[in-house]
Amino acid sequence: MRNSLLAAIEAGATFYDLAQQYRVGMPQSPNHPQFSHSLPRRHGDMVRSDGGSAANDLIVTGTHVGTHIDALAHVSQDGKLFGGIDAQDSCIGGKYESLGVHTIPPMISRGILIDVVGYKGMTCLDGGYEISLADIQGALDAQGTQLRPDDIVLVRSGWGSKFGDYAGYMGAASGVPGIGTEAAEWIAAQGVRAVGADSTALEVIRAGAGHAELPVHRIFLVEHGIFIVETMNLEELAASKNFEFALVLIPLNIFGATGSPVRPVAVVEKK
Amino acid sequence: MRNSLLAAIEAGATFYDLAQQYRVGMPQSPNHPQFSHSLPRRHGDMVRSDGGSAANDLIVTGTHVGTHIDALAHVSQDGKLFGGIDAQDSCIGGKYESLGVHTIPPMISRGILIDVVGYKGMTCLDGGYEISLADIQGALDAQGTQLRPDDIVLVRSGWGSKFGDYAGYMGAASGVPGIGTEAAEWIAAQGVRAVGADSTALEVIRAGAGHAELPVHRIFLVEHGIFIVETMNLEELAASKNFEFALVLIPLNIFGATGSPVRPVAVVEKK
Amino acid sequence: MRNSLLAAIEAGATFYDLAQQYRVGMPQSPNHPQFSHSLPRRHGDMVRSDGGSAANDLIVTGTHVGTHIDALAHVSQDGKLFGGIDAQDSCIGGKYESLGVHTIPPMISRGILIDVVGYKGMTCLDGGYEISLADIQGALDAQGTQLRPDDIVLVRSGWGSKFGDYAGYMGAASGVPGIGTEAAEWIAAQGVRAVGADSTALEVIRAGAGHAELPVHRIFLVEHGIFIVETMNLEELAASKNFEFALVLIPLNIFGATGSPVRPVAVVEKK
Amino acid sequence: MRNSLLAAIEAGATFYDLAQQYRVGMPQSPNHPQFSHSLPRRHGDMVRSDGGSAANDLIVTGTHVGTHIDALAHVSQDGKLFGGIDAQDSCIGGKYESLGVHTIPPMISRGILIDVVGYKGMTCLDGGYEISLADIQGALDAQGTQLRPDDIVLVRSGWGSKFGDYAGYMGAASGVPGIGTEAAEWIAAQGVRAVGADSTALEVIRAGAGHAELPVHRIFLVEHGIFIVETMNLEELAASKNFEFALVLIPLNIFGATGSPVRPVAVVEKK
Repeated sequence: MRNSLLAAIEAGATFYDLAQQYRVGMPQSPNHPQFSHSLPRRHGDMVRSDGGSAANDLIVTGTHVGTHIDALAHVSQDGKLFGGIDAQDSCIGGKYESLGVHTIPPMISRGILIDVVGYKGMTCLDGGYEISLADIQGALDAQGTQLRPDDIVLVRSGWGSKFGDYAGYMGAASGVPGIGTEAAEWIAAQGVRAVGADSTALEVIRAGAGHAELPVHRIFLVEHGIFIVETMNLEELAASKNFEFALVLIPLNIFGATGSPVRPVAVVEKK
Repeated sequence: MRNSLLAAIEAGATFYDLAQQYRVGMPQSPNHPQFSHSLPRRHGDMVRSDGGSAANDLIVTGTHVGTHIDALAHVSQDGKLFGGIDAQDSCIGGKYESLGVHTIPPMISRGILIDVVGYKGMTCLDGGYEISLADIQGALDAQGTQLRPDDIVLVRSGWGSKFGDYAGYMGAASGVPGIGTEAAEWIAAQGVRAVGADSTALEVIRAGAGHAELPVHRIFLVEHGIFIVETMNLEELAASKNFEFALVLIPLNIFGATGSPVRPVAVVEKK
Repeated sequence: MRNSLLAAIEAGATFYDLAQQYRVGMPQSPNHPQFSHSLPRRHGDMVRSDGGSAANDLIVTGTHVGTHIDALAHVSQDGKLFGGIDAQDSCIGGKYESLGVHTIPPMISRGILIDVVGYKGMTCLDGGYEISLADIQGALDAQGTQLRPDDIVLVRSGWGSKFGDYAGYMGAASGVPGIGTEAAEWIAAQGVRAVGADSTALEVIRAGAGHAELPVHRIFLVEHGIFIVETMNLEELAASKNFEFALVLIPLNIFGATGSPVRPVAVVEKK
Repeated sequence: MRNSLLAAIEAGATFYDLAQQYRVGMPQSPNHPQFSHSLPRRHGDMVRSDGGSAANDLIVTGTHVGTHIDALAHVSQDGKLFGGIDAQDSCIGGKYESLGVHTIPPMISRGILIDVVGYKGMTCLDGGYEISLADIQGALDAQGTQLRPDDIVLVRSGWGSKFGDYAGYMGAASGVPGIGTEAAEWIAAQGVRAVGADSTALEVIRAGAGHAELPVHRIFLVEHGIFIVETMNLEELAASKNFEFALVLIPLNIFGATGSPVRPVAVVEKK
């Protein structure tokens, strides 16, 4: 049986891991339950008569912390989810049946990195900087890439490099760079499947503003049915100068949830 | 930029989702923290002045419940992990630094389904049935497949079809079918990367025995450094008669944990 | 400063602990999130330069598992909570503001043990046995006790002695003994503050019936505003033959929750 | 049956609730798992055929957040717990068997409020202020109170009034007032059972120092076997000018844990 995927991978594809590590104490939005991890059993706690022992974990987490995907059920506007579905009615028995994360299929799609910060010759955009449509289009042109329907688009601000610095990454004082509504509307109009970024909220957050208004979330999730991926690590991929790749994006199948942790991987073939 | 992966996918690849759904009340081993999910905020709980609203989740889970991967740090024998690493020393600050699930890279490998139950002309093997080496080799021959180093091997017993029946799936009274040590030693000797199955423990569990002894875990995790994937759903893949495929297996990057939820996907190209 | 409480205690009061122990694996209703406990840090994980070390915990729990109190917000009938409050409107921002467990004050009240099983000369009532009004009144008479307004009433079936046996205690096959609607109506009419029992549901559960109908919950919580305490341990208190005592019942002050773990204590003065 | 406790309570005792409310977002030490609360089921999610409905909770919490008690197993020095018990050996199967919180009995003892901040004529001590032995003795004298063996001692700094202000209460920049080693040694020498305070760490925390060194914890928990209660609310009790009272302090009985949420109550008789 011929399999060109396997052939390509066996010929030496490179995998770029686009997720930040889930680690106790990592930066995350205070709006969501904090990630915790503990070991109920460690080796040695209960050794079987044959000398075997198993260690295990207890995990607590929100689904919008760490690298994760937003399901369409995450955000509503004026009481409606994407497609005009009533947001309250869609919650049946405490689960978002219609547009929960369990309705997102596993995805392997063309991914396009829009390396805005690289295009601007910086290592990190300033806190609160709004990535404009001109920035997006300038970067795409400089890279020689174009968006197509069903692409997964990753917008790099460089902010992911701050992930080791809790306060810096959260940017309460500085704001956080990201796209604004102008760039979002244009990206959405290209018919993409999902948009990712290397900050907690994807969109621009002004200094001191917090998450009081999130119009880009509305544009993508509610108006266009486009998934959002946040808290990505795009540094290594950007350094490789690969702007087009196969992007593997597979949420967990959690019934009725509004999001899921995810570990997106960019696959680049040997040239 | 040519990309044969994308070309194959765009030409019409089929994705087989090999995970069971995470759902409150699903069957799981009582040895691990129970999966829980709740919505701290639902739409309407806090509506912003602009009419927007966000819903979110609180997830509690063990890492060995639902479809998941066992990291090598999960099991020790006589105080040692794979490679002779001291099991207690490897736990630093409450995290398994050396062989935790964060050390497993994202994988896309050749996957081979060994459809033992299909080969035997049944829909489900009997509780407590030990899949023998002859069963494994007979199924491989009948399928026209062979194992190679770095393959990910999926052994189907048909037990996954019982996932909707808690007591039936757990099989406390009946036992659960799976491979025994003879088949495990042979599979390990082929140099595979990971072995998956459609039951909670992968290996055969005798009626009434519980998980008191798990020698196949020792063989794979401790002696050979082979990852284990459990609680898979192999029904649809088996029905398609695709025995060879590209298997996408990407654990979450959880620092120091002994396992991770995972949603494995088999990718089959259009013929 | 004179303090007769302290004087009584210092003169040798006896404390009867009426709670079962919270322990991983204890029996609990499958309708509620399972109790889990793990130690994120153990001694030795992180030792400070001065030789000090701290261990800590991660707890996950429902509020209706182990010995606990039901707040009035726990149960509604035809969309209404106690006092005719609309059950959906009372949930503001994901919290039961009006009748949540945070609205229950710390209580020290007269407690009356109605030792039905002792009165009937048994060690444990049969599964599914409905404690009748005659049983209640017979036991009260035999004990020489009477109910008064604001009492906290504890009804002993003897079922608490099975707490170490998960399946036995849950009683799926056998049913669980408890009061029925006749006894509940009469107890409620006495104006008591709270009613406790030594089973998971307080009221009689028929064999095989599960918690499909819980009319006694409706009578106490919705119709009369009487708190319910479940999964108590009344064995030692009953053995002491103290039927009247000061009962200390102090829920945690958890904003907006429908229940709380509680450790009720009966205080009996030296005679 | 005569019961002087009940007589006193029925004659009109006043209860002072000394706990802060458990509420999502409350200030807590970042060293411990964050308190989360969610409602898996709300009224209306699952209505039974008879019109009844139950709402329930999912709670996640550390045991050293909110108002809580430290068990003796919480802190070790040079590998030893109180009484010279080996700290690592005392953890059996992932539970602190010897000095875990389940070994603390329910307590009703004489409580003494040492209102240091009131004595000094302030509403709140300054961040980082060390309460000296002279402060303690001065306040006791001014109040006309003396410590006795088995007392539970509550030291008020006024810091509890800041509980609604996360950053202010945590005091990373300002430090937090509390007793130092001099006062702690003297209090311990009086033979008290437990010491409580209205801040997260009980003891003085210098500005910028964090919890790097906690010598008062060592003195009380390791050297003298005295329990610590933290994050109390002493404002209302202090305003009442009751310095001596019956203190009810009943931890949850959580097997093997290092602490427990607690809701202490001071009971003051009508004079």
